[in-house]
Amino acid sequence: MLSFEPADDRYIAELTEYVAIPSVSLDATRETMLEAARWVLAKLDFADARIVETGGHPAVIGGWTGLPGAPTVLIYGHYDVQPTGDLEEWITPPFELSVADGRLRGRGVTDDKGPVYIALEVLRQFIVQEGALPLNVRFLFEGEEEIGSPHLPDYVRSHAEEFAADLVISADGAMWRPTEPSLSVASKGLLALDIEVTGANRDLHSGRYGGTVANPVHALVRILAGLHHADGSIAVAGFDDGIPPLGELERVEIAAVAFDEDDYREELGLTELFGQPGLTTLQRLWTRPTLEINGISGGGPYTVIPHRASAHLTCRLVPGQDPAHVAVAIEKHVADVDVPGVRVAVVVEKGAVAAYTIPPDHPAIAAARQALSEVYPGQPVLLARIGGTLPATVLFEEVLGAKTLFFSFSTADELLHAPNEFLRIPRLREGMQAWEGLLRLLAAGEHRLAPIVLPTPSPSTSPATSSTAAER
Amino acid sequence: MLSFEPADDRYIAELTEYVAIPSVSLDATRETMLEAARWVLAKLDFADARIVETGGHPAVIGGWTGLPGAPTVLIYGHYDVQPTGDLEEWITPPFELSVADGRLRGRGVTDDKGPVYIALEVLRQFIVQEGALPLNVRFLFEGEEEIGSPHLPDYVRSHAEEFAADLVISADGAMWRPTEPSLSVASKGLLALDIEVTGANRDLHSGRYGGTVANPVHALVRILAGLHHADGSIAVAGFDDGIPPLGELERVEIAAVAFDEDDYREELGLTELFGQPGLTTLQRLWTRPTLEINGISGGGPYTVIPHRASAHLTCRLVPGQDPAHVAVAIEKHVADVDVPGVRVAVVVEKGAVAAYTIPPDHPAIAAARQALSEVYPGQPVLLARIGGTLPATVLFEEVLGAKTLFFSFSTADELLHAPNEFLRIPRLREGMQAWEGLLRLLAAGEHRLAPIVLPTPSPSTSPATSSTAAER
Repeated sequence: MLSFEPADDRYIAELTEYVAIPSVSLDATRETMLEAARWVLAKLDFADARIVETGGHPAVIGGWTGLPGAPTVLIYGHYDVQPTGDLEEWITPPFELSVADGRLRGRGVTDDKGPVYIALEVLRQFIVQEGALPLNVRFLFEGEEEIGSPHLPDYVRSHAEEFAADLVISADGAMWRPTEPSLSVASKGLLALDIEVTGANRDLHSGRYGGTVANPVHALVRILAGLHHADGSIAVAGFDDGIPPLGELERVEIAAVAFDEDDYREELGLTELFGQPGLTTLQRLWTRPTLEINGISGGGPYTVIPHRASAHLTCRLVPGQDPAHVAVAIEKHVADVDVPGVRVAVVVEKGAVAAYTIPPDHPAIAAARQALSEVYPGQPVLLARIGGTLPATVLFEEVLGAKTLFFSFSTADELLHAPNEFLRIPRLREGMQAWEGLLRLLAAGEHRLAPIVLPTPSPSTSPATSSTAAER
Repeated sequence: MLSFEPADDRYIAELTEYVAIPSVSLDATRETMLEAARWVLAKLDFADARIVETGGHPAVIGGWTGLPGAPTVLIYGHYDVQPTGDLEEWITPPFELSVADGRLRGRGVTDDKGPVYIALEVLRQFIVQEGALPLNVRFLFEGEEEIGSPHLPDYVRSHAEEFAADLVISADGAMWRPTEPSLSVASKGLLALDIEVTGANRDLHSGRYGGTVANPVHALVRILAGLHHADGSIAVAGFDDGIPPLGELERVEIAAVAFDEDDYREELGLTELFGQPGLTTLQRLWTRPTLEINGISGGGPYTVIPHRASAHLTCRLVPGQDPAHVAVAIEKHVADVDVPGVRVAVVVEKGAVAAYTIPPDHPAIAAARQALSEVYPGQPVLLARIGGTLPATVLFEEVLGAKTLFFSFSTADELLHAPNEFLRIPRLREGMQAWEGLLRLLAAGEHRLAPIVLPTPSPSTSPATSSTAAER
């Protein structure tokens, strides 16, 4: 067994440094993104790691493959973070890690900087305390997860040999509940698009032109209002194509998960929940796709007819849905709305990803279940699903032929993507213990992975040998 | 006849100073607003004028009442301007007056700084060249017109004796066309409101919560889409109450105004016009109220369910409509939309104003028609209407018992309230000549106003005597 720090001070100090780098992939400078990548690289001084160009934000890749014949895992995570949103809603500044009430608060601390840090720290302690890892490890820490990983597919496809592995372990994702250990066996896909409506060649005085020209905001709200029925179900024909009906076994499994709708509702400050009729909240969350208007904008609080208005939408897709087919269905639905006097454009973002699943009886799930049981004794390990999207998983399966195990110690209620994102401090230590157990189980014993033949084994076995592997 | 400058250089230099003061009443500092008020005050050094507190942005008031027994006019205008909107859409910086192609470009140059300047310059030249004005003049230049003049009513009501006049002449408003002299006999009323929809107590990750809670943007677009029918007509029951049907005489008068719908459409860069069925564009513009969504906002281009969304709306009202009644009709319409899982608030802004009219046979219209005919010989003077709103007019009629003559040399196509607002340079000189003629006609001859008895005549008759009247 590895021994971890007696107190969390060093962990918190290092995460404070990491969170302080505002690596918002949507709009950060190249230098800021590089700074975050370098921070990750510095933690990989025991391995043969480097920063690589992807065509977008750089990635940190490499490996420690000192055990020929042993299984190989690819550890995936990301160093980029979501935008802060409205700064006024943050209790403390988003890039100054705050420590209070057993929680760390800051943008990216739980998605995905803290969970990546857990994995890095375990790897380092294996090297420091035992001089070697229990199996071969490769790395891929990207900088574009929060913007849909636009350059990852090309990069992984053209460098597949660098990532060859028996299993991908994702440090991204999140557990279902802080009090119940769980493993995710599915994540939703993601399709993003913008609807842009344009009217006159300029904003117009609402008195001098009002009533004589179409208002792009009026057209946009008409289009958007037609995307859902009044009962909340999606009105786009073809949207659900390919989704199998909810099976009886699935109903029983979901019903077995303790879920209090009143607690859920109250925690959100709502008087009632809302969603597709005839389903429970957990069925809606785990088995149904969404078509969500994330943002809408146009004009402002002054007396104009704005000359343009737009909305950003994302769909969370479930197994069976083809992102391209869904995009076409939405485009057709929008095109069928008659809005005279304006131009309407639907711009589908590149990088849409399908939903992902790993079979509940996969060897990695068995190993992970045992590792979690040892850290959380006496608690059943639930098989849950992720409503979020992990674009890399579908890619890894396609290119590397490897399934992805989600093994993050983030929790779904930790305000991911919202102001005041946080991470529970005890999860740092629990996560490290679980990662240690998982890696040992995958390396040996009944859950040992069947190793692939590594294409280019690296001889590096100590921190010193690879510290010259740097950014290039 | 007064003689004006041989070239426009001084006029442009002075307007450059005035436009450089960014007196955006929506959000400028007190000091900036005061600076603009002081600029106006400095031009009134021949009169007994001062800056007064109104409870909001200050106003410039005062008078030159050196001719007891002569008629008295109150000259109204405003020194505040609209927000710039998107700075990237401006060809030149909004507060740096640009001179090119016979036009002055800058925020406020035509609404209302240029037109006010025309009036001030004429008054000064009367004093400089003739030592006196042809009639008594009072002033009211406010700083809150672009935000609905929230403090003007109380101020005018409690200081009515300072504004007593036979006629109000508004330097605000705009002529119908640059090529056709016109007088406005009506302006629309204005009612502003916000619709705010609130959901959960925070923005939510669209994957982790999607499909289980109502999205405030979805609710908002449903509400907004229901305000109009697909054909563009207003769907709010009771909205039209009190509006007389379009009369045959009105149809004939409007049809007599040359108006090329294709030119209008092309100038706006549109493929088709749009509005209430069964009416011409000019009928829509001049006789119909509007319910316009000026702005909409919520969330952004990231994967959240926003926890709030809002829209700003304004109605342009026509004679017969009661603003309070219209507000209640909209509130009821919104309340009738069933949007589960969110809270909806309709916030009606204070300061709504009804539509305004001046009879086409009013003596001031006759005088103005003659003054314009002398400046634009051979061109018929059209009787037009203003789609915009001049809140002070209704107030003046109620409190002072005086009608308002719109006598601005702004033109409706000069991008009022939009980026790249401009004023045609020749209008400066034409405006000055017309103001001179108008004041002389109102003072004497067949169009002479029947004078009221002024309550507190001031003896000041030269620039020197009142130059000590300053801000207090």
